[in-house]
Amino acid sequence: MESAGARPPSARVTIKRMPERAVYERAAIDAILDEGLICHLGFVTEGQPWVIPTIYARDGGRLLIHGSAAGRTLRAVQGGIPVCVTVTLLDGLVLARSAYHHSMNYRSVVIVGTATEIVEREAKLAAMRSLVEHVVPGRWNDVRGPSEQELRATMVLSIPTAEASAKVRVGPPGDAEEDYALETWAGVIPLTLEAHPPMADPRLPAGIAPPNYARFYRRVPAGNGKQAGR
Amino acid sequence: MESAGARPPSARVTIKRMPERAVYERAAIDAILDEGLICHLGFVTEGQPWVIPTIYARDGGRLLIHGSAAGRTLRAVQGGIPVCVTVTLLDGLVLARSAYHHSMNYRSVVIVGTATEIVEREAKLAAMRSLVEHVVPGRWNDVRGPSEQELRATMVLSIPTAEASAKVRVGPPGDAEEDYALETWAGVIPLTLEAHPPMADPRLPAGIAPPNYARFYRRVPAGNGKQAGR
Repeated sequence: MESAGARPPSARVTIKRMPERAVYERAAIDAILDEGLICHLGFVTEGQPWVIPTIYARDGGRLLIHGSAAGRTLRAVQGGIPVCVTVTLLDGLVLARSAYHHSMNYRSVVIVGTATEIVEREAKLAAMRSLVEHVVPGRWNDVRGPSEQELRATMVLSIPTAEASAKVRVGPPGDAEEDYALETWAGVIPLTLEAHPPMADPRLPAGIAPPNYARFYRRVPAGNGKQAGR
Repeated sequence: MESAGARPPSARVTIKRMPERAVYERAAIDAILDEGLICHLGFVTEGQPWVIPTIYARDGGRLLIHGSAAGRTLRAVQGGIPVCVTVTLLDGLVLARSAYHHSMNYRSVVIVGTATEIVEREAKLAAMRSLVEHVVPGRWNDVRGPSEQELRATMVLSIPTAEASAKVRVGPPGDAEEDYALETWAGVIPLTLEAHPPMADPRLPAGIAPPNYARFYRRVPAGNGKQAGR
């Protein structure tokens, strides 16, 4: 659909199934990565694949992930083994006239590569800032920064986003031509991830109001929220 | 937290990091699987992990997934190689007083196992019905069922849910004790996946109203929607 103008970066991330849904433009891939809140990180230990949800941030051409320096996941990945990182945004349920053509509207990015640990102190701090700011822009300057012990307890990994492709489905169902005569309702139920009014920590002292980035939290930038279901 | 009363089914799905978030109760795991719309399917080809988002349904102790019989993903998995299926529900953003204790409220399930193809015609039809009904309960009886050709073009796989664990975080931030004196707002921004009014297919004839399951679509059963952010 939007695949004209950009080429897949490698054969193995080229979309074979439903190639009309393939997207290789860097800006389109980055926009999906910037909207998502979590990724699913895939890696292999002793032949067994694992898929672990985790927070991430995009910093230019890198995806940053973090976790406990003592945890299994990041220790497994730290050594430079192949990983796959997938970010998926759900935009709607596609109700076709036939069971077969039911689908979902979605935007997903699949990245393959290897992870590199960020060890230098200032680079690690900057990455931790990116991770907080990716989730809640404006938050970093309001909070206590990491202590030396917290820095040591955190592992930060960087994965290049170069070898990636996106797959995007939008729009109404695509039914078999003869099925359009059926008297079955067909269309899209749009889905969005909605933020609700912030709930103060019960231990918060009275008189501390939620900041605007929490009161008016929106994942999708204003004007970009209509993609669902079109 | 809720881990009392059920034991992990195997060592490899036992939660080591943040064990207080581990959940092994079958009913709790199944409830997460029933609420989710997509899973992330992990598998390995030639040492490279892949993580692919896909629709699924739970049928008792099995997870059903489907796709093109000609596609790479299901053909890779069909042969009984080890897979990992992860379902993640995002419930909120946790804003702590320190950068380090920022988190998310979520419910996730990780299943490991191997997939078996469902080939028998009636069993395959029943699985396809489960897949449609998982996403939009009530939809199957309103649509044209699969033709013989559509049945052949679809591959359906079954993965046992027995070897699984869930991880659940709920509630306010858990800050370091000395940080509670800070004058930083802290709390949770609840997140929910919201359905919006259905958009009719432009080719739908006038006078066909959306059915109630589309007009009033809700992912979370009534009375169960308050988990976010508590």
